Amino acid sequence: MNGKKVAVVMGSDSDLPVMKDAVKFLEEMGVGCEVHISSAHRVPHKTAFIAEKAEEKGIEVIIAGAGGAAHLPGVIAAFTHLPVIGVPIKTSTLSGIDSLYSIVQMPPGIPVATVSINGAKNAGILAAEILALKYPEVKEKLIRFRKEMADQVEAKDRRLQELGAAKYLEEMK
Amino acid sequence: MNGKKVAVVMGSDSDLPVMKDAVKFLEEMGVGCEVHISSAHRVPHKTAFIAEKAEEKGIEVIIAGAGGAAHLPGVIAAFTHLPVIGVPIKTSTLSGIDSLYSIVQMPPGIPVATVSINGAKNAGILAAEILALKYPEVKEKLIRFRKEMADQVEAKDRRLQELGAAKYLEEMK
Amino acid sequence: MNGKKVAVVMGSDSDLPVMKDAVKFLEEMGVGCEVHISSAHRVPHKTAFIAEKAEEKGIEVIIAGAGGAAHLPGVIAAFTHLPVIGVPIKTSTLSGIDSLYSIVQMPPGIPVATVSINGAKNAGILAAEILALKYPEVKEKLIRFRKEMADQVEAKDRRLQELGAAKYLEEMK
Amino acid sequence: MNGKKVAVVMGSDSDLPVMKDAVKFLEEMGVGCEVHISSAHRVPHKTAFIAEKAEEKGIEVIIAGAGGAAHLPGVIAAFTHLPVIGVPIKTSTLSGIDSLYSIVQMPPGIPVATVSINGAKNAGILAAEILALKYPEVKEKLIRFRKEMADQVEAKDRRLQELGAAKYLEEMK
Amino acid sequence: MNGKKVAVVMGSDSDLPVMKDAVKFLEEMGVGCEVHISSAHRVPHKTAFIAEKAEEKGIEVIIAGAGGAAHLPGVIAAFTHLPVIGVPIKTSTLSGIDSLYSIVQMPPGIPVATVSINGAKNAGILAAEILALKYPEVKEKLIRFRKEMADQVEAKDRRLQELGAAKYLEEMK
Amino acid sequence: MNGKKVAVVMGSDSDLPVMKDAVKFLEEMGVGCEVHISSAHRVPHKTAFIAEKAEEKGIEVIIAGAGGAAHLPGVIAAFTHLPVIGVPIKTSTLSGIDSLYSIVQMPPGIPVATVSINGAKNAGILAAEILALKYPEVKEKLIRFRKEMADQVEAKDRRLQELGAAKYLEEMK
Amino acid sequence: MNGKKVAVVMGSDSDLPVMKDAVKFLEEMGVGCEVHISSAHRVPHKTAFIAEKAEEKGIEVIIAGAGGAAHLPGVIAAFTHLPVIGVPIKTSTLSGIDSLYSIVQMPPGIPVATVSINGAKNAGILAAEILALKYPEVKEKLIRFRKEMADQVEAKDRRLQELGAAKYLEEMK
Amino acid sequence: MNGKKVAVVMGSDSDLPVMKDAVKFLEEMGVGCEVHISSAHRVPHKTAFIAEKAEEKGIEVIIAGAGGAAHLPGVIAAFTHLPVIGVPIKTSTLSGIDSLYSIVQMPPGIPVATVSINGAKNAGILAAEILALKYPEVKEKLIRFRKEMADQVEAKDRRLQELGAAKYLEEMK
Repeated sequence: MNGKKVAVVMGSDSDLPVMKDAVKFLEEMGVGCEVHISSAHRVPHKTAFIAEKAEEKGIEVIIAGAGGAAHLPGVIAAFTHLPVIGVPIKTSTLSGIDSLYSIVQMPPGIPVATVSINGAKNAGILAAEILALKYPEVKEKLIRFRKEMADQVEAKDRRLQELGAAKYLEEMK
Repeated sequence: MNGKKVAVVMGSDSDLPVMKDAVKFLEEMGVGCEVHISSAHRVPHKTAFIAEKAEEKGIEVIIAGAGGAAHLPGVIAAFTHLPVIGVPIKTSTLSGIDSLYSIVQMPPGIPVATVSINGAKNAGILAAEILALKYPEVKEKLIRFRKEMADQVEAKDRRLQELGAAKYLEEMK
Repeated sequence: MNGKKVAVVMGSDSDLPVMKDAVKFLEEMGVGCEVHISSAHRVPHKTAFIAEKAEEKGIEVIIAGAGGAAHLPGVIAAFTHLPVIGVPIKTSTLSGIDSLYSIVQMPPGIPVATVSINGAKNAGILAAEILALKYPEVKEKLIRFRKEMADQVEAKDRRLQELGAAKYLEEMK
Repeated sequence: MNGKKVAVVMGSDSDLPVMKDAVKFLEEMGVGCEVHISSAHRVPHKTAFIAEKAEEKGIEVIIAGAGGAAHLPGVIAAFTHLPVIGVPIKTSTLSGIDSLYSIVQMPPGIPVATVSINGAKNAGILAAEILALKYPEVKEKLIRFRKEMADQVEAKDRRLQELGAAKYLEEMK
Repeated sequence: MNGKKVAVVMGSDSDLPVMKDAVKFLEEMGVGCEVHISSAHRVPHKTAFIAEKAEEKGIEVIIAGAGGAAHLPGVIAAFTHLPVIGVPIKTSTLSGIDSLYSIVQMPPGIPVATVSINGAKNAGILAAEILALKYPEVKEKLIRFRKEMADQVEAKDRRLQELGAAKYLEEMK
Repeated sequence: MNGKKVAVVMGSDSDLPVMKDAVKFLEEMGVGCEVHISSAHRVPHKTAFIAEKAEEKGIEVIIAGAGGAAHLPGVIAAFTHLPVIGVPIKTSTLSGIDSLYSIVQMPPGIPVATVSINGAKNAGILAAEILALKYPEVKEKLIRFRKEMADQVEAKDRRLQELGAAKYLEEMK
Repeated sequence: MNGKKVAVVMGSDSDLPVMKDAVKFLEEMGVGCEVHISSAHRVPHKTAFIAEKAEEKGIEVIIAGAGGAAHLPGVIAAFTHLPVIGVPIKTSTLSGIDSLYSIVQMPPGIPVATVSINGAKNAGILAAEILALKYPEVKEKLIRFRKEMADQVEAKDRRLQELGAAKYLEEMK
Repeated sequence: MNGKKVAVVMGSDSDLPVMKDAVKFLEEMGVGCEVHISSAHRVPHKTAFIAEKAEEKGIEVIIAGAGGAAHLPGVIAAFTHLPVIGVPIKTSTLSGIDSLYSIVQMPPGIPVATVSINGAKNAGILAAEILALKYPEVKEKLIRFRKEMADQVEAKDRRLQELGAAKYLEEMK
């Protein structure tokens, strides 16, 4: 696997504290990412350009995050046939329901693979799952990640059995 | 007032039975309209082209209607500084709440003047109100329209006073 | 362009911290504003008076903001044929969904050009877009504003390319 | 009790099939009603006039029904200190949630006594409950109505005990 | 007007910081209030007793506030033919939408006059409007209250004209 | 298991076409049911009586269905310590969201075991699951029911494998 | 009553501060609980195992809490015929509406007894109500709990009558 | 590309009229599909088995559709690291909002790529986009599909320019 395989695009740098979780997860999986700030509304030509040039640069999955009338993922999907993953960003007024509906309710023909509100980490995991179909080294890391995640739950449950709920709660503080 | 002053754009011809109300009202006001089917997602270049060329063709207001993840009005607004009026189209699943949020919740910098769900007639009236600031013949017709609308309410109320509620209801059937 | 061209009206002075964004933007565009506190419910005659006298004072666009059962924009629209822009104010209980529905769902005949919840800046921009149809000096400033907004996104993206996501985030703090 | 004590106002004659339930109930209670079609947006002066003149005509309660951005009850309440009962009318797009929020979320100072969506009969009952405080003949009829309503439930339950659920259902068809 | 005319009932003393606004307003109008904590679910017999005995104690209006599955106003209305005003209390999870629907959507036969979420002051005003039909001293105070409320808006608007928006905002801090 | 173990109560006979599914399922499990029409609002004393007398009559679970401001399950729960299962009935205006919130959002102290909107069959199954803890004959029938339900899914999937999706769809018509 | 009768399961230890209320209540009723952390998604085999083995370990009721796409209660119910009580956990984005819908809207055949958002105490009470059908010592404690809860409301109301609303409020601080 | 690459799973055969659109699209792209009816709740072991065995059978993408408390996609994702696409099915009570929230709001660690309510065709397209990364013959067909979709919009717009809106509407009937 040579070069950057995922482009992570967001409408504003205020989305970066959420979207960085996708970048971080992908780096842990050994997947390189391009990261861009590019609003569908303020710089529409740049956004179209990023989407149209992605494939020839070797990008295989695009993750796009936006809030409110969150058009970025759908607009990117309009300019490419690569799979596009959309992250609805939580908003201060409607909590991200507006972002979710604007991303998930795409018309027939142009899908966006939508994850949960602020679910940038899951967007990264989904991108890794897609790349794992082609790149065995990603698949291997992904399986290990899943295993560790399960182990952590088991460890927490064992600790809970040892301590009981009351002491566990105290320890959490 | 020479030439067509309003462009009415919709994402699919299935929106035309709603959007025709805008066209019809504007024609009654003596305002010529261009009408286009141009999806923000299926033909993004065409949509950008319509928006970017509108001003030089003499268009002064753009009305755009779309349903679901209704990006069309916002995407058009990204490519022009003309006022853009958005009509959220009712959807079969979420009744148009998805369309409404996707249109009205635009980020700072690029507004869309949103009207009610399926409110294409009001989009036409709003366009006429904007043009009336420049074209006295539109203003005159608009004032007459408002007057007639009020007269109709008065006439109905008079009829109700004559008949009483029960007989008025029978007459309505 | 002589005199004040926009009236900004709000139901309570508690809306002023939001609504000032419209005033500020319009002043940057060189557009003078009247600003009024006038509740549709507490001082209905004053509200009607402001709306009815607006045109003869030279006002061309009215921006009205209100929260909850947000009747102010619609009530003003009932008393004038000038374009009325409505700003739904965020509320402490329903986050402004109540304000949004009360403003955007106007019946056929009397439109209100609705912007996003707390979207007063966009209301100002929309008013400027309308005035730009008549006043070249507003259009020029509006085009410059759009250009600067795009430039800022470009500058942020360049900075992100230089620093990478991790360092950019640190710099943001 | 002389003369008409309740004014029933609605924004459009399309609301009459719902609003007639208030009129009918009040007539059964022996309470006379004025009925008016008067839109808050299309004929604002007429609406203000109805509200302002109500008291001196002997009206003691006003019932107002409207749908969508349902301003009528609140606008009437702005012009009178009589109790105003609001009926949110079901809408074809948002099912009346828009009407409900537009009526019930009134700001401090000007209440509207809101009943359920399409709850015109309950608006009539509430008006009768208010008038019953002053007019013993209304109180008496209201108590009898409540008694009969309870008797009907009892009768249905007795019938259900006799027939069992299966046969009762058949009988209902 | 002798004795207490309004009963203000709430499901929990945690509702008192909201519900006190109704009591306070009514006292300013010279109307005496009984105040009770009585949950529809935890002490159903007590709640029924309060509702059933209200009329013979001279109570003419009952105000009931509750949150969540807010049954208190409807349950009280089931045991009396006095007008019952319901105040939906804001909840920590659903912001009071649950309370609102539980109060306003009463079935035909038993209305509850619903005010806005946390709208206890408006509940007090509505009670005063009802009592004003019978007690001229309440009507007089109510008219004065309305006048003062309007005067305050006028005073604020005058101050805004003097200072301009920017200085007014500073003064507000 | 002697006598009727479950009481099924509904606010109106219009709820019977939904609520009969609970009765039918319980009869299939060999569990006898009392069925009552008893509105929390129209016949509150009768409702309280049914709830209070249930235990001494041998009832062990109460199922209550209601729509709109659906107080019946909560009101019954207030008068008994037996487990109460609530069925939110779909409404013509808010689709049963009002019923759901009115039933599920009970305050601490008085729970209602809520099932899905119109989920009367599941209410019956839940009641059977509770009774199965005590009555082996119910448990046995319940296990058989679960087995048959699984078998049906398996049979449908086998048929789908035989026919393929296209022919299966034709066969469904 | 020998051994632990209730299993309390949650998807993550971040749910424990809410879910502990169920454990605490059941311990006050003298009912022993198993407590587990076991995510339906991260450790599906463990979750299935807990559900399938519950009955033979003597568990009679399972309480499961989860947030977001809250599958845990339904998944557990799929693997057992014991009654399963679901607690929707409040989420930071959608306030728990997502959790509520994911838990309550179970398909016919597999019910989950849903309580209010964050209603873990009520889940404990509901479990106790179910166990009280079999274990007289639980029933006795439950009746005492109900009595004390009622007494507390009565005591608060008496205190309110003594102090009046204003002083009571001060005392609350 | 040998063998079936996509598994399409649904909870009930009542979902097949929607889910068949995914199958049909994939067949048009030359992609073979397994289709299964397998409820997460009624046959949990079968569902786990399908998910766990998918990869070794050569499946690369799983599409799962479900309605209400729609756990199927998330439960499948729990048992595999293949990308899982979720289709929220429209429901008769909550229109599919329940399905959408139950599918999209997955917790960190286990993503589901969610498409629009009833968006099975888009699920098929998304699966094809993923497979196109590996299989050039799918990519080629996908590009042709996108081109034809754009051509259809262009053709409709040309027809609209020829006929005008009024005649076009007539032709549509």
